[in-house]
Amino acid sequence: MTKQQNILIIGAGLCGSLLALRLGQRGYNVTVMEKRPDMRKVDISAGRSINLAFSDRGIKAMNLVGILDKVMPLCIPMKGRMLHDVEGNTVLAPYSGREDEYINSISRGGLNELLLTEAEKHDNVNIHFNKKCLSVDFEKTTALFKDYDTKKEFIEDADVIFATDGAGSALRKSYYLGKKFLFSFSQDWLSHGYKELSILPGENGSYKTFKNALHIWGREAFMLIALPNLDGSFTVTLFLSFDEGEYNFNNLTTKERVLEFFEKYFKDALELMPNLVDDFFENPTSPLGTVKCSPWHFKGNTLLMGDAAHAIVPFYGQGMNASFEDVTEFDKVLDEGHQDWETIFKVYEANRKKDTDAIADLAIDNFYEMKGHVNHPNFREKRNLEMAFEKEFPTEYSSKYSLVTFNEDIGYRDAMLRGRAQDKAILNMLADGTLNINDDLKSNLEKVTTETDNILEDDRIAGLKS
Amino acid sequence: MTKQQNILIIGAGLCGSLLALRLGQRGYNVTVMEKRPDMRKVDISAGRSINLAFSDRGIKAMNLVGILDKVMPLCIPMKGRMLHDVEGNTVLAPYSGREDEYINSISRGGLNELLLTEAEKHDNVNIHFNKKCLSVDFEKTTALFKDYDTKKEFIEDADVIFATDGAGSALRKSYYLGKKFLFSFSQDWLSHGYKELSILPGENGSYKTFKNALHIWGREAFMLIALPNLDGSFTVTLFLSFDEGEYNFNNLTTKERVLEFFEKYFKDALELMPNLVDDFFENPTSPLGTVKCSPWHFKGNTLLMGDAAHAIVPFYGQGMNASFEDVTEFDKVLDEGHQDWETIFKVYEANRKKDTDAIADLAIDNFYEMKGHVNHPNFREKRNLEMAFEKEFPTEYSSKYSLVTFNEDIGYRDAMLRGRAQDKAILNMLADGTLNINDDLKSNLEKVTTETDNILEDDRIAGLKS
Repeated sequence: MTKQQNILIIGAGLCGSLLALRLGQRGYNVTVMEKRPDMRKVDISAGRSINLAFSDRGIKAMNLVGILDKVMPLCIPMKGRMLHDVEGNTVLAPYSGREDEYINSISRGGLNELLLTEAEKHDNVNIHFNKKCLSVDFEKTTALFKDYDTKKEFIEDADVIFATDGAGSALRKSYYLGKKFLFSFSQDWLSHGYKELSILPGENGSYKTFKNALHIWGREAFMLIALPNLDGSFTVTLFLSFDEGEYNFNNLTTKERVLEFFEKYFKDALELMPNLVDDFFENPTSPLGTVKCSPWHFKGNTLLMGDAAHAIVPFYGQGMNASFEDVTEFDKVLDEGHQDWETIFKVYEANRKKDTDAIADLAIDNFYEMKGHVNHPNFREKRNLEMAFEKEFPTEYSSKYSLVTFNEDIGYRDAMLRGRAQDKAILNMLADGTLNINDDLKSNLEKVTTETDNILEDDRIAGLKS
Repeated sequence: MTKQQNILIIGAGLCGSLLALRLGQRGYNVTVMEKRPDMRKVDISAGRSINLAFSDRGIKAMNLVGILDKVMPLCIPMKGRMLHDVEGNTVLAPYSGREDEYINSISRGGLNELLLTEAEKHDNVNIHFNKKCLSVDFEKTTALFKDYDTKKEFIEDADVIFATDGAGSALRKSYYLGKKFLFSFSQDWLSHGYKELSILPGENGSYKTFKNALHIWGREAFMLIALPNLDGSFTVTLFLSFDEGEYNFNNLTTKERVLEFFEKYFKDALELMPNLVDDFFENPTSPLGTVKCSPWHFKGNTLLMGDAAHAIVPFYGQGMNASFEDVTEFDKVLDEGHQDWETIFKVYEANRKKDTDAIADLAIDNFYEMKGHVNHPNFREKRNLEMAFEKEFPTEYSSKYSLVTFNEDIGYRDAMLRGRAQDKAILNMLADGTLNINDDLKSNLEKVTTETDNILEDDRIAGLKS
């Protein structure tokens, strides 16, 4: 396997441009084909959320390619969830009891542009825009593109093809429709869709509400969230059922009804959004889906990575971080010195898939947690106890959220198994009175640790898989 | 909704012909289109397993249409699993501690022919053969067929269309490819495939091995099973990985290797199969897949039922029973007197999908149980205890297997939740010594019941879904 091999990457989004940068650093000849125009030259809507949560797994990947110092200026720290109740009262629920554990709001476009620029600094990396992939012949290792400039189709030949072309991946579609091998595949849609709205900047780029938090208006059946941007604005997202409940996307069809809905449930947010109605009717409503599949690779010819392999819902703030971690994990396998791409792809998928399956499931769980659980007394009591554990015994306890978000050296699956067992232990011991929040904190921590280990051991003996 | 409505059923397999019979009994005008020739006139391989397990949920459906007396002569009772170890030693592990709880081996063809004949006794039911469905226009409620006799395509118009056209359903494909609504869909393949073999009848139609059992040669990585037929033969099925392990379907390519494999692992079975090599190379190797999807219906126009809606792997012996139960459950919703098909379809899916999802997962679990767990001391000890409970306290205890198989008035999901909790309780109490099989049986039953309830309650408090 020589470095002179020609690698084709389909898609120059966040995952594809990071992969191009890393493979470029390793010396491969890399060609990247991107369907959109160059976002550094043309002002385009990325068609996806404007800002994203960036946390430790993403940071680890930025360190791998040595550009963390250029990424940090794009970040706005969010220390916790700012919970807004229906009366407009707020409380800040920190993400961790450890001061240095927080997530960041980052601009998708800003980060993607940085990655493109860094990748192109390598002479062996060439990025082409306005080239849409139509299909991949994974047996021949060729891909068919449509050139949006010339309007012509062309075939690109490569030694190996990586598809980082997102949730609607052309390679994944070719795997599915090709029926050349047994391809396991799932697409699961939530009953809820989403629509992006905005809180515009205040005077002189000031923030109209608290800057350093992820704001949540959780209303059980639906919710609104807001993340800050560098220019003083917030990107606001409404998650709402398409067709269930008194208010849903299908029946919010007039200005009056939209205002009535926001007056009733999001009064304090509405006051910050005089532009609500325009945003509501101008911006699209999009579905929320989870995609899983296997195998990701065909022999040593082609490999799916990022959202193309595992699209997830946004509720854990891990979509981008998981895709970046794909590159970190793939790089680790490259370091192992295998002699052919087929072995590399096999080892990578065997290591990685259990973790991307886990974060997909965790993200669904968090949908229910954010919409409703955050308001329940039991849940708040559990979180308070966990904050105290993390503060007083910082090396001894990490909540599920912390295991997933701030422990980049623990895989998502292990984080899920331990995190769920901890939640179950605490919620049950609070319910049956075994745990009293007024008791000594150290003895409470010991109770939780012991009960968590019991739960994991009971599951192991019963042979349950999760 | 008048009875004069024209109902089109696509597929006259087990589910479609039962549905035609039931809707015929209820007075609807029913047209059925089946792609294969009439199996009562032409000797065809059904292309699927020759015999099947028939049990209480299936019996309930046969009672609904009043033909159980005609079905019973087709049945061979199987009282338990006959476990064959590698030395050829056998032990019969009963399915239940209750004498009257057993499953039956039944001929797929014999049962399907009976259902066709019964359905056709109704003047308002018309079945057409050699008509393959190519696609369904679910918005117009029309289906496109190819007539294998005339070689022509034609469109069939109906007031409502039921697709009972199996795992490769044309309607399901039209839902998926149509992209007219958010269609959640999964196909999951096991690493193992299967191949049918046979033990031929002895002299005068005698049985060469014990007739009244489901024979299992479980070898952890693979397994062989055998079910009896009325003519003295057994249909034998080999479940084996396509490409993993020392022996797999991809490398069993010569007569010598096949014989070596059977000599080594299935010696006592090989002695009954002088025809093994011919069967092995004549019969196809087929994959094992699970299909789930949602929604099953489009408005009040079309509905998926049976394998078309939920194809499962065969390891719980519930595929046919689940499809028959679809008809029972659908019939129950018809009795509720809703005014339109859309409501009927919605209520049916809301009631039913949780149960077909559960049996799909249970069937995967049983793959691991049959291949390997049945040989483990822990598992055998658990089963012995459960047999004793069922024998001594027949009204107070049912194992997971019994809940799923012999309790037709408990849904699959409730059977799964209680059954899994019982298994977990027993395996853990055996492991930690809380349960001693030499203790008084009544007190052991109380321990198991209490611990099972604790497990279910802990899961409920933790908000875990399964």
